[in-house]
Amino acid sequence: MKIPKEIISVLNQEKAFLIATHINPDGDAIGSALALSSALESLGKEVHVYNKDRVPEFYRFMPGHKRFRRGMKNALIKKPVLILLDCNSPERAALEQYSFRKSVVIDHHETERDFGDIRWVVPSAAATGLMIFYLLKAMGITSTADISTNLYTAIAGDTGTFRYNNTSPEVLTAGAELIKTGANPALIAECLYEQWARNRFDLLVMTLNNLEIKNDVAVIHITKDMFCKTDTIPEDTESFSNFPRMIKSVKISALFRDIGDGCWKASLRSKGDVNVAKIAELYGGGGHRNAAGFKVRGSLQSVKEQFLRAAKKLAGN
Amino acid sequence: MKIPKEIISVLNQEKAFLIATHINPDGDAIGSALALSSALESLGKEVHVYNKDRVPEFYRFMPGHKRFRRGMKNALIKKPVLILLDCNSPERAALEQYSFRKSVVIDHHETERDFGDIRWVVPSAAATGLMIFYLLKAMGITSTADISTNLYTAIAGDTGTFRYNNTSPEVLTAGAELIKTGANPALIAECLYEQWARNRFDLLVMTLNNLEIKNDVAVIHITKDMFCKTDTIPEDTESFSNFPRMIKSVKISALFRDIGDGCWKASLRSKGDVNVAKIAELYGGGGHRNAAGFKVRGSLQSVKEQFLRAAKKLAGN
Repeated sequence: MKIPKEIISVLNQEKAFLIATHINPDGDAIGSALALSSALESLGKEVHVYNKDRVPEFYRFMPGHKRFRRGMKNALIKKPVLILLDCNSPERAALEQYSFRKSVVIDHHETERDFGDIRWVVPSAAATGLMIFYLLKAMGITSTADISTNLYTAIAGDTGTFRYNNTSPEVLTAGAELIKTGANPALIAECLYEQWARNRFDLLVMTLNNLEIKNDVAVIHITKDMFCKTDTIPEDTESFSNFPRMIKSVKISALFRDIGDGCWKASLRSKGDVNVAKIAELYGGGGHRNAAGFKVRGSLQSVKEQFLRAAKKLAGN
Repeated sequence: MKIPKEIISVLNQEKAFLIATHINPDGDAIGSALALSSALESLGKEVHVYNKDRVPEFYRFMPGHKRFRRGMKNALIKKPVLILLDCNSPERAALEQYSFRKSVVIDHHETERDFGDIRWVVPSAAATGLMIFYLLKAMGITSTADISTNLYTAIAGDTGTFRYNNTSPEVLTAGAELIKTGANPALIAECLYEQWARNRFDLLVMTLNNLEIKNDVAVIHITKDMFCKTDTIPEDTESFSNFPRMIKSVKISALFRDIGDGCWKASLRSKGDVNVAKIAELYGGGGHRNAAGFKVRGSLQSVKEQFLRAAKKLAGN
């Protein structure tokens, strides 16, 4: 992976940085930010790490997660350079009200925006964490156990721990190196997949009980009542929409979650070439080929029926 | 990994081989056998592949799986050398009634048996497939796409696709090389984890509905009636006992499956250092530290209560 020389220059020359990542941060956003902040601090830089949202509970095993600040207190005093990670526009990071004298974007999402004085956007990279892995190597920064754990978690998160179709020889080779420098793959996997609260598991089972499959499209739903009965919150439904994908015939899987006022939030997942972002766009939502989402108003029954009609056309292709 | 020279000599010098693996073959057994058989055939050898049991349906994506024979028809005519893979005694492969003029054992299970003229047993190897990977390299055999797919599946199977604590830099580096030579990691993961029949999924959800957790021990059960209602068979319950491990507090997970005549088959799984083989031994069963099993007679209620008492002591340690 070719790293722009300007990025290395800026990181070496500047003294203060604000690292920011997208709202609702995932493992890749959190791990990339924490790894880069540790690396820059090892060079004697002052680094602040910002996210509008809190770090979800299941990522709180990541070393240094408490560094994230949800506000800008003291962060802007030294006029830091902004480093935007795992996203490429200030809006995605809830930064639209701030301005920076210099900004760097490091991201692997496809983009149409051109924010950033220095932009390093590589859509073919499996994870932003993989880009940071190569960046630190190019800068000659030794990966500590903490950096390795954060980068391994970032890469694991965005590749489904080496199960998605972005899993390449480069991804596994980086994983091997990160284990050598201190990442514990089994512990990270246990933290990512085996740390569910009992009530979250109960909500999952309750949700899977209402699975319907029509024309290779799976639909599940969560009502307010189900949240109440299990004493759970929306954050607990992370990854639920993946489970129906286990079924061979399922090409598209959708979770409808009651968000109040007669509205539902849909989380879509698909297999292979089926592009659920296309369905999401019909509803004014968006996302990626295999993971997208939208909001819709209506009764559960009518919302589901309308969705199944839209999805049928796509899955059939 | 050091490979005994005698193995390479035998494989190069002999002309006919019978490759056999353990009963109830898993991905590692099947993949290792199919990869080695392709490799030996590329050297012009005659190879028969034997297993007492059929290849489970969810492994039938593996290239060459139809090569497995459940009988010895024509296999012994040329007095083949036996190669026992992923096990180390003839009984584990249901071969006790046959004798061979020469035998080679390649395995990664701990063992007390000393069967085999040439024994290559490496308990620290993550998978027998990893040993075959190194063996083929040492023999200078180029890995085809089929061989790579079988070895990647073997290694993925025994490491939970790089999630268990046997995931090492060597494992990921081998995975990277196997992708380069033709293994498709996303396709293999989809075949391993996302090819469930609908009725198998329904049985899983029905089973998880009866989850009980006491003192960090999770128990689920499947009655004959549940098999009937979902039109499923015992083979469909593979991996069910892993699901309650998702819950943070769970240290031991047990599935009790009705096998008729008032008997139950228990499949045990554990996290970390908790050794479920010790519980299984109390009942005359056995297994590994994190995966073991036994059979027991009694009413579901009494069987569960007795087990929870035995497991409580262990999980508490």
